[in-house]
Amino acid sequence: MATATAFTPGARAMARCDLMGAPPYSEVEGQLVRRFLTPAHRAALDTLANWMIEAGMSVRMDAAANLIGRYEGATPEAPALMLGSHIDTVRNGGRYDGALGVMLGVDVVETLNLDGRRRPFAIEVIAFGDEEGSRFPASMTCSRAVAGTVDAAVLGTRDAEGVSLGEAFTTFGLPATDLAHAARKPGDVIAFLEPHIEQGPVLEAEDLGLGVVVAIAAQKRLMVRIKGAAGHAGTTPMGLRRDPGPAAAEAILAVERICSAGRDGLVGTVGRITALPGAFNVIPGAIEFSLDIRAATSATRDAAVMEITTEIEAIAARRGLDAAIELMQNLAESPCDLALTDQLAAAVAASGVTPRRLQSGAGHDAMTMSALCPTAMLFLRCKGGVSHNPAEAVREDDCILAARAMLAFIDALELNPTP
Amino acid sequence: MATATAFTPGARAMARCDLMGAPPYSEVEGQLVRRFLTPAHRAALDTLANWMIEAGMSVRMDAAANLIGRYEGATPEAPALMLGSHIDTVRNGGRYDGALGVMLGVDVVETLNLDGRRRPFAIEVIAFGDEEGSRFPASMTCSRAVAGTVDAAVLGTRDAEGVSLGEAFTTFGLPATDLAHAARKPGDVIAFLEPHIEQGPVLEAEDLGLGVVVAIAAQKRLMVRIKGAAGHAGTTPMGLRRDPGPAAAEAILAVERICSAGRDGLVGTVGRITALPGAFNVIPGAIEFSLDIRAATSATRDAAVMEITTEIEAIAARRGLDAAIELMQNLAESPCDLALTDQLAAAVAASGVTPRRLQSGAGHDAMTMSALCPTAMLFLRCKGGVSHNPAEAVREDDCILAARAMLAFIDALELNPTP
Repeated sequence: MATATAFTPGARAMARCDLMGAPPYSEVEGQLVRRFLTPAHRAALDTLANWMIEAGMSVRMDAAANLIGRYEGATPEAPALMLGSHIDTVRNGGRYDGALGVMLGVDVVETLNLDGRRRPFAIEVIAFGDEEGSRFPASMTCSRAVAGTVDAAVLGTRDAEGVSLGEAFTTFGLPATDLAHAARKPGDVIAFLEPHIEQGPVLEAEDLGLGVVVAIAAQKRLMVRIKGAAGHAGTTPMGLRRDPGPAAAEAILAVERICSAGRDGLVGTVGRITALPGAFNVIPGAIEFSLDIRAATSATRDAAVMEITTEIEAIAARRGLDAAIELMQNLAESPCDLALTDQLAAAVAASGVTPRRLQSGAGHDAMTMSALCPTAMLFLRCKGGVSHNPAEAVREDDCILAARAMLAFIDALELNPTP
Repeated sequence: MATATAFTPGARAMARCDLMGAPPYSEVEGQLVRRFLTPAHRAALDTLANWMIEAGMSVRMDAAANLIGRYEGATPEAPALMLGSHIDTVRNGGRYDGALGVMLGVDVVETLNLDGRRRPFAIEVIAFGDEEGSRFPASMTCSRAVAGTVDAAVLGTRDAEGVSLGEAFTTFGLPATDLAHAARKPGDVIAFLEPHIEQGPVLEAEDLGLGVVVAIAAQKRLMVRIKGAAGHAGTTPMGLRRDPGPAAAEAILAVERICSAGRDGLVGTVGRITALPGAFNVIPGAIEFSLDIRAATSATRDAAVMEITTEIEAIAARRGLDAAIELMQNLAESPCDLALTDQLAAAVAASGVTPRRLQSGAGHDAMTMSALCPTAMLFLRCKGGVSHNPAEAVREDDCILAARAMLAFIDALELNPTP
């Protein structure tokens, strides 16, 4: 039966990610940009749906634009183990961040189906629509919807073109008002396993293809707005300016200094910056920039945010400017489920890899899914620890190991893994 | 004859600027944005053309989208005195910067026409389409075209939406390839007089309604691009980052420091800044920002540009980044024509105002027009020296004085003012 459609689980998942690295699965030619609710997102879901069906799953799209393939258990309507990750990317991102976790889920289910194996639980493969937040100023909207923790106010957020999330859902063909309908009942999902590239250098440094995540770092996203007075670039003497630009510059250097001096994996990033109105010959009236602060613990992170906030306010006051800092997102550190992680570690060991336990500096859908069910995360080694970049790369043998570990995990999993 | 359509020259010019402060003459409701080749630009030209015709002029649009009204002299096809300024604005700009010079020209010609007066020279009123450079990364494209100094490569520059200038001309209904056709023959234009708000505090401080410009400051526009390596905001330790953001921050502070320490009216402005790719959770791979450096002399300006360039290169080298600095525009200091300026000063005195001679920190179309013909500039007092801002304001009595001085200037002007 397996010989009829021979494939190597894991290797094919990687190849499918490569296929999805270009249009129509990317919004632009020459790089990978697949943002939430774009035509590229739609194209990826159309193809993925076919792959899920070929793998023996029934397929549906939920109210939050998540694509879900379901492989029934030994008895119909059994609670499900969910496998998967997100299908969106950052601008000019890599091919594996997110997508690889989805494609591995499909490969694993197809393997079970080709062998005619059913477990006491169903298996669902999910492709979350938005994890990166690269289109709307909020992330993990889709896994929040599944976990039942989404705030309906997110529908009012707007992308850079002024389109609201609600409008984008409507354009995509989904009634935006039904976002809450994506929520799953706790008893219906026994666990969530997310395979994902590490996005860091640890596994490569230790020559390990796989790793087991014990916790995800605490993260805060803030928007800083420093307001001064716009003026003519040629006629306003330097001494009479209330230019927010140099104040923002001092703030960016303060972020670098404070986070570099920190511990517990503290990192701080200014990823976006805009001068308003934004003309060559106009002194900006305001500067806005984003802040992303993470650490292993909320305490370390919050101490850094406090220190940065105090510093920005002092800079603004000294220069006679106004500073406003808005909290956009607040994610506590998120431990993975201990019992489930132990089972995943055993499965990794069974696939021949020493089960290295490590922390994730990046946020993941597994964080938000932990509000619904026990979660575990399987990391795959990535080249140079690089992600969010076209240079992102994985090894085929690691992908094959990951599929093997996932199958071992599924074989050993009980219907009620956490008593 | 004048009583049939009684109006107060200058006062009406101001009122017309006020009328053009909102849609359809602005791209957005609630503020004034009238950028080159937009529907707002078109609406302004349509109405202006009617006003020009009512003032007794024949009207045409040249190949660079400049609207030109012509009032014939005593003999047909006589060389022309040109009056006017630009009709475009910065984003969220003021109502008088540029437009007032055009409207004053119309008022002055209508006064002559109502009196049935013809001079030995024709008078043309011109509304330049682009002086601010608020849409495309080049400014004074239109007066350059008239002066015959435009570089056809400018057609390849693109606005923030990716539309090239050439494409924008085509959309506007003009064949972009014909830009050079806007050039005037030197003998056809005897002089250019540009009335404009001061955009600085000098006239207000000295309680004068008008001023006479002796020279326009030297200006350079540069784009700085600092390149590092994009990376994941959560997983790249601070010590391993090649983030161009803090380097750009140091550069912005260096610009402020160097220009603040300078003399000869040296000013430096960073009006635009962009992080690429520009996501909350991605360490930027590159930062781009604009530099606008001006001083009374090219020597002072160039010394500052050199010092800033050296500093940016040192910052980039210290941080292991690449810096590239591109010169976008280079305008030497531009003295106004001495003889013509003397005549303008006499006309200002004749209108009852002490003719204060002053320098312009801002660039003006008169700079580029000086390649074609002798130029002079009449400054009007503006409130608080504020421009490029909705708070921009002028006094009606100053506008009336300006029209009076322009008429005195026209009355005294010879056909060959500079031997």
